[in-house]
Amino acid sequence: MSDAVEYSPLYLKRGEEARLRAGHLWVFSNEVDVKRSPLTAFAPGDICIILDHAGKPLGVGYVNPNSLICARLVARGLDHALDRSLFVHKLNVALSLRQRLYAEPFYRLVFGESDGLPGLTLDRFGDVIVGQTTTAGMERLKDEITEAVVKVLKPSALVWKNDAGIRSMEQLPEYADIGYGSLDAPVVVREGGVEFECDVIGGQKTGWFYDQQANRDRMARYVAGKRVLDVCSYLGGWGLRAAAMGASEVVCVDVSQHAVDAIRRNIERNGLGDRVTAVKADAFDELKRLREQRERFDVVVLDPPAFVKRKKDFSEGRIAYRRLNEMGMQILARDGILVTCSCSYHMPRAALLDSVQQAARHLDRHVQVLEQLQQGADHPVHPGIAETDYLKGFICRVLPA
Amino acid sequence: MSDAVEYSPLYLKRGEEARLRAGHLWVFSNEVDVKRSPLTAFAPGDICIILDHAGKPLGVGYVNPNSLICARLVARGLDHALDRSLFVHKLNVALSLRQRLYAEPFYRLVFGESDGLPGLTLDRFGDVIVGQTTTAGMERLKDEITEAVVKVLKPSALVWKNDAGIRSMEQLPEYADIGYGSLDAPVVVREGGVEFECDVIGGQKTGWFYDQQANRDRMARYVAGKRVLDVCSYLGGWGLRAAAMGASEVVCVDVSQHAVDAIRRNIERNGLGDRVTAVKADAFDELKRLREQRERFDVVVLDPPAFVKRKKDFSEGRIAYRRLNEMGMQILARDGILVTCSCSYHMPRAALLDSVQQAARHLDRHVQVLEQLQQGADHPVHPGIAETDYLKGFICRVLPA
Repeated sequence: MSDAVEYSPLYLKRGEEARLRAGHLWVFSNEVDVKRSPLTAFAPGDICIILDHAGKPLGVGYVNPNSLICARLVARGLDHALDRSLFVHKLNVALSLRQRLYAEPFYRLVFGESDGLPGLTLDRFGDVIVGQTTTAGMERLKDEITEAVVKVLKPSALVWKNDAGIRSMEQLPEYADIGYGSLDAPVVVREGGVEFECDVIGGQKTGWFYDQQANRDRMARYVAGKRVLDVCSYLGGWGLRAAAMGASEVVCVDVSQHAVDAIRRNIERNGLGDRVTAVKADAFDELKRLREQRERFDVVVLDPPAFVKRKKDFSEGRIAYRRLNEMGMQILARDGILVTCSCSYHMPRAALLDSVQQAARHLDRHVQVLEQLQQGADHPVHPGIAETDYLKGFICRVLPA
Repeated sequence: MSDAVEYSPLYLKRGEEARLRAGHLWVFSNEVDVKRSPLTAFAPGDICIILDHAGKPLGVGYVNPNSLICARLVARGLDHALDRSLFVHKLNVALSLRQRLYAEPFYRLVFGESDGLPGLTLDRFGDVIVGQTTTAGMERLKDEITEAVVKVLKPSALVWKNDAGIRSMEQLPEYADIGYGSLDAPVVVREGGVEFECDVIGGQKTGWFYDQQANRDRMARYVAGKRVLDVCSYLGGWGLRAAAMGASEVVCVDVSQHAVDAIRRNIERNGLGDRVTAVKADAFDELKRLREQRERFDVVVLDPPAFVKRKKDFSEGRIAYRRLNEMGMQILARDGILVTCSCSYHMPRAALLDSVQQAARHLDRHVQVLEQLQQGADHPVHPGIAETDYLKGFICRVLPA
């Protein structure tokens, strides 16, 4: 053990090591033996060794005394310091998966805990990398991360899109800036042959929702020759891909003028102006208007922002999902296809399905679930951390009862 | 209501109509108001009208007084008799979905409750249809079903593969015979360009596992140039498809000599003898032997028969899944892919994932779940009937911890 790293110890209470041994990476503040290792002795982001009650080390992690999740395990055992070379190793492991699976360099490269890097997200847009840290520990390691990213990927730019609300849980400020290199042109993502301009500084999340890429691929066999409605369209991901897959007519709806402007640029960029239009409207308002106008679509895609951001939003959120799905069904043509999604971790898959079924029964329809959707392979699920499995959806056939 | 059908009434107790109104199709024997409508007055398979306590009809179904599920709803409302024309209609609705989704006529055409035909399964192998009835009601309607199948599909043969153990729950005999037409040549299914000879009289289930077809499709990006092990191979579905997708070497393992002979015929038929071999062995024995021989595979596919056939088998079955997955991981090459499945309805998705994670931790591996698998779109899930969602699986990357 002469090579073992030396950091301050964080002792767990007796028995509290079980979840970590089972694969999880989080330590909650009530699990720490604060008599032996007071949390107040740590500054946010300090690196530590996590040990069980008997003093047996679990591995190396980092601390935030101000957060409910007060520590996260980054490397099991004591052989690895949290330094550039560890990040280089973990980036290479993450990259080798994506290079195996994707023909082009557009994907989530690092998905936090699932890639062994709790608190870090990296998305790749060709030679632009967009990163996000959500913990004080990763925020403190930004220099090491940057060096590793530069070494492994040689990007033209690394953008820190650190404006996620979740950062407030770690008392981190919100900002978005360029951490390395420069952005000389609009960032473009290519998906299924369609190009999308993304605003990686001012847009939602890291600028693009790679988590739905594989699900959009699966839409192909349902949309050819069909009239498609893309609700909560953002940059037109579902809608423009549907058009490229042969949909006869596509309407994209988004409440943000910024998004609608971007959709229109993307329509133009891909020469799809003959078949795709973008409407600036609230999803519920527009669905109501379309129903009143007796408009019908063969395929309706519902990919709303999370309605259940926190557990306590569940009751209200599930009502919103139920309502949205019912309104989506009301403008479906006979024997239509409903693509319905939720990216809320706190909205379980079964609850989304219940919402669909309740809506269907209320309208006297019969639903057949043809495909179950989940986040793509570049957002791997960590089987020991339920929170990493957040995106769910269904491709449904909706028939008269 | 002058056109309403007339069958004997089956009254439910007060409140017991709620599940049916929510979309389910089953009536349990303790839900029947046996004072008003004694179950003993019905013969197995009798058609009935199901009514709530207030006498409001829910629809038309059939009865089996000897079964725990004593009635199933087939048609909501009273507009439809359970006759040939209803079957023709439901077959056409089922067929139109499959014709939309599949380039070739190889799929499950009717998936029981989900296609509005509780107790009936129909698989299509080109112009041969293989049917299975699992309830006395559907058994009694075999003539009407046959007529409808002939009218809609004009098959060369309709085979009744009525040897499922589940039929004993309805006190039905087990048999397999040709109900219509004739079988002049071996039945062949074509999947992803590979041909498989199926024994639709003597084989497992209806002769082929269409439910895994889409999952086998998804294997493509993991197997090219790789060494693949297909455990519980049956007719070589996963293994031969992997070879056709470019796997460098494939070993198929099955405990049945009948299956291994069939795999070998299928290897021959597809000219894959240079890359695929078939081994007759018990899955656990062979995995142990391979481990002892220090054999390594880049991809291991575990698609065993149901280890949890009944709820009470759960504790024992989950241990078997855990053990199988651990043995599969032990012969995986570094950074290998594990494809693991369960077709047991009583083995929940989360329990299978736990088994994988426990195995991984025991071996000090880190698992990334890349894709979540479920039954194909020709086995639609009925969102009101949890039992219709039975097949689950994961494509996992297995790394050193």
